[in-house]
Amino acid sequence: MAYQIPRGTQDVYGDQSYKWQQLERIFREFCYLYNYDEIRTPIFEHTNVFKRENDSSDMVNKEMYTFQLENSSTSLTLRPEGTAGVIRSFVENKMYANPDLPVKLYYMGPMHRHERPQKGRLRIFNQFGVECLGNKSPYTDVECITLAFSILKALGLNDIKVTINTLGDDESRASYRAALKEYFKPHLDDLCSDCKRRYEQNPLRILDCKIDHDKEFMKNAPSMKDYLNEGSKEYFETVLSLLDELNIPYEIDDNLVRGLDYYTHTVFEIVSINKEMGAQSTVLAGGRYDGLISYFGGPDGMSGIGWALGIERILLALEAEGVALETKPALDAYVMCLDSEARSKALQIVTELRAYGYRSDMDMLQRSFKAQFKAVDRAKAKVAILIGNTEVENNQVTIKDLKKKEQTTVDMEDMIKTLDHILMEEHDH
Amino acid sequence: MAYQIPRGTQDVYGDQSYKWQQLERIFREFCYLYNYDEIRTPIFEHTNVFKRENDSSDMVNKEMYTFQLENSSTSLTLRPEGTAGVIRSFVENKMYANPDLPVKLYYMGPMHRHERPQKGRLRIFNQFGVECLGNKSPYTDVECITLAFSILKALGLNDIKVTINTLGDDESRASYRAALKEYFKPHLDDLCSDCKRRYEQNPLRILDCKIDHDKEFMKNAPSMKDYLNEGSKEYFETVLSLLDELNIPYEIDDNLVRGLDYYTHTVFEIVSINKEMGAQSTVLAGGRYDGLISYFGGPDGMSGIGWALGIERILLALEAEGVALETKPALDAYVMCLDSEARSKALQIVTELRAYGYRSDMDMLQRSFKAQFKAVDRAKAKVAILIGNTEVENNQVTIKDLKKKEQTTVDMEDMIKTLDHILMEEHDH
Repeated sequence: MAYQIPRGTQDVYGDQSYKWQQLERIFREFCYLYNYDEIRTPIFEHTNVFKRENDSSDMVNKEMYTFQLENSSTSLTLRPEGTAGVIRSFVENKMYANPDLPVKLYYMGPMHRHERPQKGRLRIFNQFGVECLGNKSPYTDVECITLAFSILKALGLNDIKVTINTLGDDESRASYRAALKEYFKPHLDDLCSDCKRRYEQNPLRILDCKIDHDKEFMKNAPSMKDYLNEGSKEYFETVLSLLDELNIPYEIDDNLVRGLDYYTHTVFEIVSINKEMGAQSTVLAGGRYDGLISYFGGPDGMSGIGWALGIERILLALEAEGVALETKPALDAYVMCLDSEARSKALQIVTELRAYGYRSDMDMLQRSFKAQFKAVDRAKAKVAILIGNTEVENNQVTIKDLKKKEQTTVDMEDMIKTLDHILMEEHDH
Repeated sequence: MAYQIPRGTQDVYGDQSYKWQQLERIFREFCYLYNYDEIRTPIFEHTNVFKRENDSSDMVNKEMYTFQLENSSTSLTLRPEGTAGVIRSFVENKMYANPDLPVKLYYMGPMHRHERPQKGRLRIFNQFGVECLGNKSPYTDVECITLAFSILKALGLNDIKVTINTLGDDESRASYRAALKEYFKPHLDDLCSDCKRRYEQNPLRILDCKIDHDKEFMKNAPSMKDYLNEGSKEYFETVLSLLDELNIPYEIDDNLVRGLDYYTHTVFEIVSINKEMGAQSTVLAGGRYDGLISYFGGPDGMSGIGWALGIERILLALEAEGVALETKPALDAYVMCLDSEARSKALQIVTELRAYGYRSDMDMLQRSFKAQFKAVDRAKAKVAILIGNTEVENNQVTIKDLKKKEQTTVDMEDMIKTLDHILMEEHDH
């Protein structure tokens, strides 16, 4: 019987797994430098954590893995994104009581959306993201964007740009919302069906509709910037001037509203401008949210900001730019067994090599000498250690330096020393 | 409104997250040395991957997170363990065609069982495990057990022992199974309800029933070792003698059968003998499986072996033994802002420090000088960098070495050099 992986999901293995590890190592390194701590929240949450009142986003409306177990009245949902679970935890665990706000958290792991699988859009995809919780300051916004930009640069991405916008505070959004409803009213019949719903729930999102984007009446839609109150305008200007001072290049995009309803003030994306990325060009996105912490039961008026990147998308962008990532590393030593009586000695030796920190392996298939040498080649081993009956009898090993093509037989007790010498030298070159 | 984490699940954050990272780093390190590659399979699989024909284990019978989405006929199950998904992937991706068998894989991540939450038994728990696939050799069994033992020792566990048993090959199991059915027949009414089912499906599992364990008739139940054929006996004896040669201490436990039906030949556990561990003493468990790869559609007769450990359980065992793990690391530098006009300079400085590899942070709450010093203390910062209007005007910074309680004002361009000097010296002590 054949068993298949579920549609829209993937196995990561072989060289690919080393690439993922490299990315994650870089993420963790930067979080260490920026004083962000890791948080791990459950794979599923109560459905209401993700399905919030008045939320118009597509994800919440139609794309979630929501289920109820037999004999249970609890509705659970596989997390579709990382922010909601982190905020739930921040509030439930009273992290807001920390005297040193903001609390800076990062997460990584699988997210789940039940959408039609297509290139670059998996049903289980993986995100790395940060949330910076508990204060509201343009300095925090800029620190957060700087972290994002620095990580992508460190990964090796060069064809990227930051796009940024502001959605202002509640007051500014309310005036803008009213202006948009007024403007789109005569065009209601011309909007796509999703936008008809958005018109009622969150008219801002009509602006980034891919279907309605090129329609004539979109061109003259009112712009957020004309509806910002003084405080929101000043906040945004400070963000931009701090970005200038740090030499983070950005572009203002009036139509950037992001697909989630909870954003206020600063929203941003980092976009790959590499041609191969096509429609999947957004590699990272985030923004500030004034209302989300109190929605989850946290202190009134406490704000946060965060962003997330998709690992699979980042890998595509790195590939598009031709950035080489790590692959399976070579073995330090491969222990070759010349006689079957020498096998238990070989197992002892390979165990000793590993204990001394050498990445090693041995033949487990009782193969011929020739076949074992092919295995040594495939493993790109730096050294082969040969054990036959003679070596066992004399308590010796034969060490073959595969780079220099030199071979030497030494006493068992000198094996590690000899290996240190050969591999250290290799390392220096 | 209050939002709560689902019952039986946990958030990992704060110091705890550094402990998890330390464990995972050690796991990866040993897998590197032993030439195991990582594999990541999906969080859910088609249900039949886990719910196999004739499988009597409790997990499969009652404890799985199985669900079907609306408008979908596909039954999905959140993975309850790691092995099945890995074997599914091994077969589906034809990894068995690798000339260098065994293919050695490791995985880590969340597993899901819908059981009553209790101490040390979560509904979402985390495993690290390995699978060594494609050959059958006592040498491979012993390498696999050595890896397990070495990792636990490296973590700092000392109160541990390996228990081991053999279930023999199919022929041996069939004779033993017949003997057990014969033996338990007159006691059928005295068996617990689970064991009545086990009697039909897999009578071996009656032996490790916690309910029937102490009943009188259990004492004289036939022992596997009397039903092993020659090949199985020899296989087990080789495993034991290789363990002896590697100085891995073990105990043979005739009643060790493990909770999964697919095991053949070698089965083993590593158990904490620390008193505080009580009923949760098994920290790692595994065994060989002759039939699982072909069950998933792989080549006939291809065997594998693997084990898994529970991260949460390991953390309990480490705590019981008083092993100290990593916690949140100290900051290298905290940038203090003495005048609000100096804030943008402070942001530039903290960004520069991070770019130079110093773990740094700054005040984001516009706090008083005194309050900022308290933050410096809480962050255990090694150095405070003070920026006020004077420093901005003169393009200087004041650096306070918090260990030596010394303070010096240097030109901006000498900041990193001065910091290198102070922190390098600290490092040397």
